[in-house]
Amino acid sequence: MARNPATADDGRLTGTAVDAVVFDVFGTVVDWRTDVAGEFERVGTRVGAQADWMELTTEWRSLYPPTLLRVVSGEIPWQSLDGLHRMMLDELLAKHGLTEFSDTDRAELVQAWHRLRPWPDSPDGLSQLRETHITATLSNGSIGLLIQLARTGGLPFDTILSAELIHSYKPDPKVYLMAAEQLGVSPQRLLMTACHVEDLRAAADAGLRTAYIPRPLEWGPDRPAPAAPDWVDLTATDISDLARQLAR
Amino acid sequence: MARNPATADDGRLTGTAVDAVVFDVFGTVVDWRTDVAGEFERVGTRVGAQADWMELTTEWRSLYPPTLLRVVSGEIPWQSLDGLHRMMLDELLAKHGLTEFSDTDRAELVQAWHRLRPWPDSPDGLSQLRETHITATLSNGSIGLLIQLARTGGLPFDTILSAELIHSYKPDPKVYLMAAEQLGVSPQRLLMTACHVEDLRAAADAGLRTAYIPRPLEWGPDRPAPAAPDWVDLTATDISDLARQLAR
Repeated sequence: MARNPATADDGRLTGTAVDAVVFDVFGTVVDWRTDVAGEFERVGTRVGAQADWMELTTEWRSLYPPTLLRVVSGEIPWQSLDGLHRMMLDELLAKHGLTEFSDTDRAELVQAWHRLRPWPDSPDGLSQLRETHITATLSNGSIGLLIQLARTGGLPFDTILSAELIHSYKPDPKVYLMAAEQLGVSPQRLLMTACHVEDLRAAADAGLRTAYIPRPLEWGPDRPAPAAPDWVDLTATDISDLARQLAR
Repeated sequence: MARNPATADDGRLTGTAVDAVVFDVFGTVVDWRTDVAGEFERVGTRVGAQADWMELTTEWRSLYPPTLLRVVSGEIPWQSLDGLHRMMLDELLAKHGLTEFSDTDRAELVQAWHRLRPWPDSPDGLSQLRETHITATLSNGSIGLLIQLARTGGLPFDTILSAELIHSYKPDPKVYLMAAEQLGVSPQRLLMTACHVEDLRAAADAGLRTAYIPRPLEWGPDRPAPAAPDWVDLTATDISDLARQLAR
């Protein structure tokens, strides 16, 4: 049987097959749910509002994929992720009749996305991986936001890449190809890592290799992560595990 | 007398006046002259050519500013810095009748710009500065090239910004404004650091603050660095000195 030289005996992708690894950030590298829900509860309590803050956080986030698609399709004009977060928040609070939040309170909640903490394995896993591969973010967050997360979380990326660089958002294929172009590697030798299957599907369609990290808490306490699709090149339990697999 | 709150008692810029510091790289952070001349000598000797390699290196570099201006003015179409380096090298070797260099030899020389070593103070200086400020490159080199320099030289930038992101080159004012936009800071709170006065002049004209580091070996062993212009906000002897001044 012909064998792809870029795979090990067991058929999995090896580290020598890729030159660089790019990471989805919200959910894959940092835990948005815990910190955003915490901020929602803190600000909500301060303004005297009552709600299931974790559920509201989940709902805020659920508005995200369709909103991005509206931007990518051209239905609404491009704006920064902070702008989109605010638009979705206004929509969410209106729907639930939560009128207690002032303009300043809402701005404070949008800023919560700038202060998310990494999953416990992220700093060490990225350090290990960086010894063998170029590492970068490939997120819909702005570069300024991503630098904040990297600095406070101790995340040693070689550089910060954002969909905002080309005023678009994932899953626009142009975003994945931009990353390959900017890093100076071919799409076939660039590994997209994410906990969201849709992100990986779009990356694979653009010609990138894909690694799935099914973050168990990404979907909420009671919802398991989706099973690994059979078309991904790698599945890893966390970033340290990914670094180990790519050291082969 | 009214005093700008962003300056210390002695009138100099203080660290609280800027949110981020961007760096010219070739000459300011890394020493291109020594390593490019060394590669020229190594490859030249291999192919049996004779020349003053240091002088040839200086001449290669002297083609750089006018070539960039031809791109910025639209006279020649944008291409990557590697492409421009190759074009200038071909011109240089033809002028000196150095026909010994094959296509592969020339490609090898262009790659020398990917392997430049930092000035001795750069790694520690950047580490110190990063404790108080966001740091980034703002170079005409590609992101891939700059990542190579940062990885091999141990240069802890928060992110890598390149003029190539917008398919232009310094001194195009759009490059400086792009850096401010991507970092999410106002141009007035972004400090451009360089050993080239022209780079700083263009940055100042675009609204940025400026720091001059007169690298004594940048202009060759016998040519002193230009004196600090009176319009720069800061002058530092090296990056560690800059970090100390901005810690105020």
